Amino acid sequence: MKKEEECIFCNIVAKKVDSAIVFENEEMMAFKDIRAKAPVHLLLVPKKHVVDLNAMTEADEGLLGRMMLQLSTIAKEHGIAESGYKVVNNIGNDGGQIIHHFHFHLLGGAPVQSVV
Amino acid sequence: MKKEEECIFCNIVAKKVDSAIVFENEEMMAFKDIRAKAPVHLLLVPKKHVVDLNAMTEADEGLLGRMMLQLSTIAKEHGIAESGYKVVNNIGNDGGQIIHHFHFHLLGGAPVQSVV
Repeated sequence: MKKEEECIFCNIVAKKVDSAIVFENEEMMAFKDIRAKAPVHLLLVPKKHVVDLNAMTEADEGLLGRMMLQLSTIAKEHGIAESGYKVVNNIGNDGGQIIHHFHFHLLGGAPVQSVV
Repeated sequence: MKKEEECIFCNIVAKKVDSAIVFENEEMMAFKDIRAKAPVHLLLVPKKHVVDLNAMTEADEGLLGRMMLQLSTIAKEHGIAESGYKVVNNIGNDGGQIIHHFHFHLLGGAPVQSVV
């Protein structure tokens, strides 16, 4: 079995696994985190399988920029842009990464506890 | 006094305020957070004054992408890419933003505590 076939986020992207999708285009998808840590807790992933930020290359510059801008758009659509939100990207063990498919967390709707 | 003249990060970028700079090019600068919450705790800011992610526009797509890739490069240079790190961008009150000049936190060198 290929790595992508075992990846939960690849399976969500392929719609083989259900998720509460809030945004989708040709290169990315946003859906609700099933272990919500805030009133609004969404994940934004690239549709292609990339393990983490370390594995992103110069060819991904546009993708990363568009994902960041999309997070802002999603925050506005969820009514939390002005009240505020936190964008988190975890890489590897010390970063607390659990799913090894690049993803941004978007958390808001209430003050978000964090070390920073 | 213009807003930029009152902004601590603009003053760091202009080198009117000292900081421990770890990276600089024409459009961004990285320096140590003076209130370090991890063995490696750096901030990466655009040199231009942008309040937060909400204020970024489509014209900033490339800048945001290059900043994300630079975070990965900086992590590698600090020897924490493989052990892992966390990238955090705070927006507004609920996001815990304190300095109102867009910045990424890069935290690593040990497991980083966080809600996600």
